[in-house]
Amino acid sequence: MTIVGHLTGVKTLPTPDFDAPLLAAAPDARFVPAPADGVLPEGFFSTTNLPTYVRVGGEWRMPREPRMDGVLVLDADGVLWIREARRVRVGELVAVGFAEDGSEGIFVHVGALMGQEAEGEFRFMTSEVSREKPIDYSLMARILIRERDRGGYPVWVAGPALVHSRARNDMVWFIENGFVSAFLAGNAVAVHDIETSIFGTTLGMTGSGDASSGGHGLHMRAINRVRAAGSIAAAVENGDIRDGIMHACVRHDVPFVLSGSIRDDGPLPDVITDALAAQDAMRAHTIKATMAIFIATALHAIGTGNMLPAFVTEEDGSMRDLATICVDSSEFVVSKLKDRGTHQAFGVVTNAQDFMHILRLYVERELQARAVAEDDSMVRA
Amino acid sequence: MTIVGHLTGVKTLPTPDFDAPLLAAAPDARFVPAPADGVLPEGFFSTTNLPTYVRVGGEWRMPREPRMDGVLVLDADGVLWIREARRVRVGELVAVGFAEDGSEGIFVHVGALMGQEAEGEFRFMTSEVSREKPIDYSLMARILIRERDRGGYPVWVAGPALVHSRARNDMVWFIENGFVSAFLAGNAVAVHDIETSIFGTTLGMTGSGDASSGGHGLHMRAINRVRAAGSIAAAVENGDIRDGIMHACVRHDVPFVLSGSIRDDGPLPDVITDALAAQDAMRAHTIKATMAIFIATALHAIGTGNMLPAFVTEEDGSMRDLATICVDSSEFVVSKLKDRGTHQAFGVVTNAQDFMHILRLYVERELQARAVAEDDSMVRA
Amino acid sequence: MTIVGHLTGVKTLPTPDFDAPLLAAAPDARFVPAPADGVLPEGFFSTTNLPTYVRVGGEWRMPREPRMDGVLVLDADGVLWIREARRVRVGELVAVGFAEDGSEGIFVHVGALMGQEAEGEFRFMTSEVSREKPIDYSLMARILIRERDRGGYPVWVAGPALVHSRARNDMVWFIENGFVSAFLAGNAVAVHDIETSIFGTTLGMTGSGDASSGGHGLHMRAINRVRAAGSIAAAVENGDIRDGIMHACVRHDVPFVLSGSIRDDGPLPDVITDALAAQDAMRAHTIKATMAIFIATALHAIGTGNMLPAFVTEEDGSMRDLATICVDSSEFVVSKLKDRGTHQAFGVVTNAQDFMHILRLYVERELQARAVAEDDSMVRA
Amino acid sequence: MTIVGHLTGVKTLPTPDFDAPLLAAAPDARFVPAPADGVLPEGFFSTTNLPTYVRVGGEWRMPREPRMDGVLVLDADGVLWIREARRVRVGELVAVGFAEDGSEGIFVHVGALMGQEAEGEFRFMTSEVSREKPIDYSLMARILIRERDRGGYPVWVAGPALVHSRARNDMVWFIENGFVSAFLAGNAVAVHDIETSIFGTTLGMTGSGDASSGGHGLHMRAINRVRAAGSIAAAVENGDIRDGIMHACVRHDVPFVLSGSIRDDGPLPDVITDALAAQDAMRAHTIKATMAIFIATALHAIGTGNMLPAFVTEEDGSMRDLATICVDSSEFVVSKLKDRGTHQAFGVVTNAQDFMHILRLYVERELQARAVAEDDSMVRA
Repeated sequence: MTIVGHLTGVKTLPTPDFDAPLLAAAPDARFVPAPADGVLPEGFFSTTNLPTYVRVGGEWRMPREPRMDGVLVLDADGVLWIREARRVRVGELVAVGFAEDGSEGIFVHVGALMGQEAEGEFRFMTSEVSREKPIDYSLMARILIRERDRGGYPVWVAGPALVHSRARNDMVWFIENGFVSAFLAGNAVAVHDIETSIFGTTLGMTGSGDASSGGHGLHMRAINRVRAAGSIAAAVENGDIRDGIMHACVRHDVPFVLSGSIRDDGPLPDVITDALAAQDAMRAHTIKATMAIFIATALHAIGTGNMLPAFVTEEDGSMRDLATICVDSSEFVVSKLKDRGTHQAFGVVTNAQDFMHILRLYVERELQARAVAEDDSMVRA
Repeated sequence: MTIVGHLTGVKTLPTPDFDAPLLAAAPDARFVPAPADGVLPEGFFSTTNLPTYVRVGGEWRMPREPRMDGVLVLDADGVLWIREARRVRVGELVAVGFAEDGSEGIFVHVGALMGQEAEGEFRFMTSEVSREKPIDYSLMARILIRERDRGGYPVWVAGPALVHSRARNDMVWFIENGFVSAFLAGNAVAVHDIETSIFGTTLGMTGSGDASSGGHGLHMRAINRVRAAGSIAAAVENGDIRDGIMHACVRHDVPFVLSGSIRDDGPLPDVITDALAAQDAMRAHTIKATMAIFIATALHAIGTGNMLPAFVTEEDGSMRDLATICVDSSEFVVSKLKDRGTHQAFGVVTNAQDFMHILRLYVERELQARAVAEDDSMVRA
Repeated sequence: MTIVGHLTGVKTLPTPDFDAPLLAAAPDARFVPAPADGVLPEGFFSTTNLPTYVRVGGEWRMPREPRMDGVLVLDADGVLWIREARRVRVGELVAVGFAEDGSEGIFVHVGALMGQEAEGEFRFMTSEVSREKPIDYSLMARILIRERDRGGYPVWVAGPALVHSRARNDMVWFIENGFVSAFLAGNAVAVHDIETSIFGTTLGMTGSGDASSGGHGLHMRAINRVRAAGSIAAAVENGDIRDGIMHACVRHDVPFVLSGSIRDDGPLPDVITDALAAQDAMRAHTIKATMAIFIATALHAIGTGNMLPAFVTEEDGSMRDLATICVDSSEFVVSKLKDRGTHQAFGVVTNAQDFMHILRLYVERELQARAVAEDDSMVRA
Repeated sequence: MTIVGHLTGVKTLPTPDFDAPLLAAAPDARFVPAPADGVLPEGFFSTTNLPTYVRVGGEWRMPREPRMDGVLVLDADGVLWIREARRVRVGELVAVGFAEDGSEGIFVHVGALMGQEAEGEFRFMTSEVSREKPIDYSLMARILIRERDRGGYPVWVAGPALVHSRARNDMVWFIENGFVSAFLAGNAVAVHDIETSIFGTTLGMTGSGDASSGGHGLHMRAINRVRAAGSIAAAVENGDIRDGIMHACVRHDVPFVLSGSIRDDGPLPDVITDALAAQDAMRAHTIKATMAIFIATALHAIGTGNMLPAFVTEEDGSMRDLATICVDSSEFVVSKLKDRGTHQAFGVVTNAQDFMHILRLYVERELQARAVAEDDSMVRA
């Protein structure tokens, strides 16, 4: 599908025309009980991250908590949910069907987010993700400020390059200034961040990029310090951790989820080592997300992308696309993310450190410009 | 434009419907004399690599020697050509116009090569070029054999990784067995190939990948040997060059073009150092090409892609797409090639050495299978 | 450290000269009890993956189960172990110290595996990992055969590109022919493999690389089928899974570990979702490993690399380097693996499909050549 | 050789100890006449980019115009030169020999620029070029200012991503503010820059990254406009080109070299289409260079790197290393550059647009800080 990763985050999406013949004539969706815990009825409907409408009792309804690769569950109270298969219990009613055009009572509104079709014309520069494409930092800055100012829920997902590469200070700035509603990462991000706070190195590499003597053990010593304290918050409290990303999250009450992986050393006591428990903890944030920023992480970006709807539903029921930015040094991660269904991702091919620095700069400039404009209008008033 | 790089090379392309209202009502194309040598009239029509029809005297005609980024010239004998702007002489008639839909007398048949549009459906794995896509060596082998057997003109374009990585023997095999009609490369390919023949190293690196002592000067010594002989052919003749790609080209009368670049050491005496003369020499082959294989080269692939039509015209006037294979270690080169208009390129993301080895293996197997089948039928007859 | 990733796997490593003044004069290592479960004494010694000797009771001894980022534990029976910090219990004796030169009773034999120092000479092609370096398939084939024939324990670690890209048949061949002692992967590898067995697609992409209609749900249906059966082995038994990698593992009693991640759909019932339990399961194989092959996976390669010693100890106490091959489409993964301490990894920059195909070809040829040689000698005898 | 790409540009290099036994006992270098124009005597000495001393008449002397892959020529006036082989005329005296340690009268001072040897210690993060390494913009800014202020000669070498990606304004700023002594690029950079000035697009792509209708011909129209004017300077003069990089070069008398390649459309009239003439034009600048910055170009970076010494000789005869920065989106280009002998290159793995923006920001901040400091001292004085 050629949904292009355009970054708008403001476009109100069109609603389907339910009076169109096919939809008007559609039957109710069919539901079949699950044969066992975590096992679905054959022919179950597999969800996408696009706006989806299910006909129940002659009425088109939208399920709660949309995500891809889930199933539609109708609960005892008649409420529709999108659930991971593993969470379905025996006997629960699961929608079945393959058609996405409404003919079996389920309509996936693909058109809502589709980019305009390229017309039949010879063109250069049509690839979607490329280091040769310009990056509109100004637009990203405005979206971020708008989300903060209207109480949105921007979710940041980061890989260890964020800390390796000294973008750490910039990340702290975004946390301190209210641009981060949730921070999702793995053990390594927190370990590097805390190693930096305690020893001034990451994996023993100094700020100037040199391998320090005895450095290979420093991340283990950092982990041990936190394990001794009992938790990251406790280590902030007792003064072991004095600055950095985790420190800022603790101090500013920004919730974080550290998901475990087989690559983890330690791990830190806060890490959720069970992948399913970690997914549940992450999804508690993605269902609230109004914006998502993925920085230099393939595992966590795709993990989060899997559970992120491509759209946001406003309180008045209108929908808009969920601005999703994916930053990576290579085109590969962004293409992979899109190939796994997160078509709405807008790819930025650059270095994480540079991305953070320039984004912050543009946000600061925009805020300054607004402050000046406000002062002006106050003076004039 | 979403022409997908499907590899067929066998599909007969549809012809335009000239009776359709817009084309039937089209005016003749307008031609304006060039104001100076190498300078075009304002508003000139800029060509693509797609099948193009020009209305002259009420008749739709195809220009000769198609390529992108050229202009349409109507010569004194009424013949239509596609020419590079720099080759246009003062007073020559150059077509003007911007429309590609025939409304100004020029019709670019975009539909001829367009892939089938993806329908409006949620899908995974839709990116065009990815290391995660399978590679159909069997199909490539069959296309290559077919081209050889029907007297086609496969053009091979290669970068130095071909020699660095020991795919050299496989390249020689393709030359010796008649699969190469022209070999386009740069100074480096020939230098590494000849260094290997004389000293057993490339850039001083041995076959097992180690840097040899004193090795950094060996490519300069190889070049000097050929300069002393006067030409590559002369160095083959006098026994200095005993094996390898250039040796095979000389021995099997396969024409080669070595184009110069600012990166060249030496260069070898056969290198065409003027970029425009080199383009002319390359184009002498691309206008005959019925297949193109680009291996591990960005510069030469894009240089050749610029002058390669996306289609082949058969003697009976029918057209088919020109099978174009682009092999590179990263998705980037293929995407860049497509972004510069060579939409028909089928990308293979792999190592040049491995590509050559497996392609040869599949060609050998296919030839063997055919030989067996033939024997069988002879026995039965 | 410039241990170069040379592939030998046969070199007997030198033993330290314990009569050298520094080592002869070394004190016993110092041990301090752990203050709490999973918490280490300050100043603990952090291990590497290199041969390590600890002086206890005036004698230099080697700890069991070497790995990097672990600690040295002296148990009640006087046996030395290398353990992950999280597995240390309160009161257990943990070695302390920073020096690796023996001066505190712990000697890391860096010299054992160090590549020969490049001498002070100007050279080209000195980078360690590059797509421009040749790949010695013949050597890899011989090492693999040798490991099989002497009862070694080759551990294969694979990412999903192995299945995406049709290297599946080749992987099955290696399993069926006794070259795989353990198979470590994630949920995705097994899901794609099983989706292919049941539906003929991976993530809905057909064998020719096209996105199939309705394909995005097929991996969920495959998972559901296995969940219904209860396990992969049960699904092989009941005929749901008829071929492929997991099928071959079950049929040939090759143990596999599927480690969970936050990116998992499903997951399959065999997946170990807890990262620490998964690490323990993986390590049960890495402590037996005599060879390791990582294919197209960053997460699992680095996860396994973390727990893999750089050497093998033979029954007679002699040591040799542990042949470690890392295959990836980009230099990045191999460099990252080395940067995280798996210096011995030999990088192969290519496509997973092509790697598997050529490696199998070389193994087959070598086996054939040996069979012929054996026949010859029997005839002669 | 493990000369690490450390960025200092300030370190005074040590001079060799000519009283050491080997050097003290060295013979004079041996010179042999060239047998023909552009042909060298067998056994010629092939130069490196490191400080080199040649013994002539019992005295150690340094040749002029150092570069790698050249030869040592002793002219009729007794002056030593490093020359490209192709420029050597029949009968000219060319040094012969293989030894670089002085034993044949030629001493390559490898030690002068060698990084400190990594000691035998287990370390993480030792790879030289990686996106995970921090980028010290502050240091780069200070070096750039220092070069400007002491009349150095910074050479900038750029690929088209510089213009594609809107770093164009930042490049203009560096030109206008005196940080660019020469600008080396290819046809494409100038074409994109001029297309932007005239049409607001690059290859038809708008500033927001979209392909514009009719856009594929715009670069051809831009070229035609300049060809009509006769030269870039003439097109600046007549107002066709109103802004941008080429405009700034013309207005601020910054010399530029546009080297031709087979990939060129047009080309622009200023392009030197002959590769050898282009090399000569480039070398006129590299022999004066005191700093080099390569941005997003493989061809031009390696072409320039080939002819760039690794050091600068001051007027007082002392030497320091020549700060060489290489910016690219992938580690590959930097590694390739180093593999071809430009060991001193400091690699920055990032997006060209972001690099330019942050570098400018740091230069501006540094200049501002100095202005403030100066004001302060004036006030105090």
